[in-house]
Amino acid sequence: MSEHYYAVIMAGGGGTRLWPLSRQARPKQMLQLVGKETLFQAAVHRLNGLLPPERILVVTAADQAPELRAQCPELPAENFVLEPMPRGTASAIGLTAVVLQKRDPQAVMSVLTADHFIADPELFQRILVAARDVAMDDYLVTLGIHPTYPATGYGYIQQGEKIGLYGGFGVYKALRFREKPDLETAEQMLKTEDHAWNSGMFMWRVERVMAEFQRQMPELFAALTEIASAWGTAAQDQVVGRIWPEIKPQTIDYGIMENAQKVAVIPAEGLGWNDVGSWDSFFDMLPTDEDGNILHCDQHINLDTSDSMVYADCDDRLIVTIGVKDLVIVDTGDVLMVCSKDHAQDVRKAINHLKENEQTEYL
Amino acid sequence: MSEHYYAVIMAGGGGTRLWPLSRQARPKQMLQLVGKETLFQAAVHRLNGLLPPERILVVTAADQAPELRAQCPELPAENFVLEPMPRGTASAIGLTAVVLQKRDPQAVMSVLTADHFIADPELFQRILVAARDVAMDDYLVTLGIHPTYPATGYGYIQQGEKIGLYGGFGVYKALRFREKPDLETAEQMLKTEDHAWNSGMFMWRVERVMAEFQRQMPELFAALTEIASAWGTAAQDQVVGRIWPEIKPQTIDYGIMENAQKVAVIPAEGLGWNDVGSWDSFFDMLPTDEDGNILHCDQHINLDTSDSMVYADCDDRLIVTIGVKDLVIVDTGDVLMVCSKDHAQDVRKAINHLKENEQTEYL
Repeated sequence: MSEHYYAVIMAGGGGTRLWPLSRQARPKQMLQLVGKETLFQAAVHRLNGLLPPERILVVTAADQAPELRAQCPELPAENFVLEPMPRGTASAIGLTAVVLQKRDPQAVMSVLTADHFIADPELFQRILVAARDVAMDDYLVTLGIHPTYPATGYGYIQQGEKIGLYGGFGVYKALRFREKPDLETAEQMLKTEDHAWNSGMFMWRVERVMAEFQRQMPELFAALTEIASAWGTAAQDQVVGRIWPEIKPQTIDYGIMENAQKVAVIPAEGLGWNDVGSWDSFFDMLPTDEDGNILHCDQHINLDTSDSMVYADCDDRLIVTIGVKDLVIVDTGDVLMVCSKDHAQDVRKAINHLKENEQTEYL
Repeated sequence: MSEHYYAVIMAGGGGTRLWPLSRQARPKQMLQLVGKETLFQAAVHRLNGLLPPERILVVTAADQAPELRAQCPELPAENFVLEPMPRGTASAIGLTAVVLQKRDPQAVMSVLTADHFIADPELFQRILVAARDVAMDDYLVTLGIHPTYPATGYGYIQQGEKIGLYGGFGVYKALRFREKPDLETAEQMLKTEDHAWNSGMFMWRVERVMAEFQRQMPELFAALTEIASAWGTAAQDQVVGRIWPEIKPQTIDYGIMENAQKVAVIPAEGLGWNDVGSWDSFFDMLPTDEDGNILHCDQHINLDTSDSMVYADCDDRLIVTIGVKDLVIVDTGDVLMVCSKDHAQDVRKAINHLKENEQTEYL
């Protein structure tokens, strides 16, 4: 691909929805959930052959950087862009955009997620190539996901008229970004067949997106410009440390995309995309055994267990399940969670309980 | 009570049905399942005021004796009658009977269980007094339990004509001992109102029961007589060690009771008796909270959990249950069991699996 093409992997998420496996010190992207790779490693490796490591950047929280660097030592250290503290996706993306623009004013930049699952990396690469071509036509491109069920856990993008066919993929104008809907609204959107899930992945020319920052978020643009001028100099840390905490957290969807000009969406089909947003999402993501189980456990006696998940990362314990169905059992050694599949979203309630009781050792 | 009255507590059981809490090295009677006492301690203490410790004997397996002695140091060491190996209830009861007969030829002996729960010890003592009076009329007395549901996990005793009223309790001839029935038979027996559960507890004059041994089990009687002659002498261990292994295991129900003369049954009501025969039996035995839960766990976050039991004997782990119902969760540190309440009987399948795979560390 073009030498001006870059990927920015957003890897700063906290991610409490896979608690107790994901923790503050070990967020979702650092976990080996599927096979031997962590989600972050998979996000980097699925660019193999498309981009050299030199053109893969990672934007992350300062305290997560050492672990992420260790997981992908092939990435140059200077490609890790560190946020002193989270300030929303608009700020994180804006920061890498100005850093990239300084490095290469002609840069085309994809914004990718570090903590999602993609079953078909080859198709993903072809979509990225198509998206780059759309971006070269001056669009801000959103990677949409063709919805397969009325999900209430995702944002949606309403598609407008078709812009054209790029690399075999239909590309549409994006009319509207919508927050997570209720079930009725989600069913309606599925029926009208003109909405895609918002994957949180984007593609654009850096010059083009910075023009949108300047137009729509002038305060942030000014802050980023000041940081950019100090970037790579001795003053960098001092300037970032002064400016960053003052930035108002905002998301890219509502800060930029919602009211940007020339926004396109590619509603990808067949990617096997999954945001791994809750324990029950594993059942859409991983193959199950003949009883519908996902068993990730060294020592397990399974008696009449069906449609359940057992995930244990301790190998010195025996786990026995008898006559259970639709359960998610997660054992991290210090925490045991037994949750019915249809209550997987309630994991956050447990986290709230821990916060209220200041049991920070389990967060 | 009379100075010739003795209690023999049968405490040799292995008890795998409360696995993984009960183990070969820590059988059910040694567990603190209710409050601060172990079941064995409760079995001894519920005789307080009725019998002095000197007249409470314990028959148990040799390897269990040290722990049981430590749990009830008030019992004289010589009151522990040790079986070198299990040879059935007929042999264990016969052995204590001859030992007792040697000590006190006029002994009246109650045979009590060590691993059952009794909610009303005061009523239990009154029943024992009545049973002794029936035994003094030369009956072999069985303590029956008035059935409250068509249990398939208990043996039954069919009641015949009423013998009389002893201490306010109706006493009946025992017609027939029946093994654990199927549900249909159990329902039938409940309907006819002439069956009691067999509690495995008895009362008789030692002389009287030994006559039955002589008549019905002459081989065992001969073996016991030979052991009795050596008991308390230097030859005791040598004689027991020679004779005991040759004894054919048999139960008291079928070896003696089924065909004995003058067998009586007292169908006790309101004792709150429970054989603690499986994890779901706790729900009949212990008070539940307003959501129907029994929680025995130092650190537990309970979210939408109902009709479930959480039993953890490790205090350094957090257990979180979310949206679960009718589950039994037992965590012993080395083993975690998650079992639906209606599969509580299948715990034995897990044990069989461990035996087949020679994972003896978990047995």
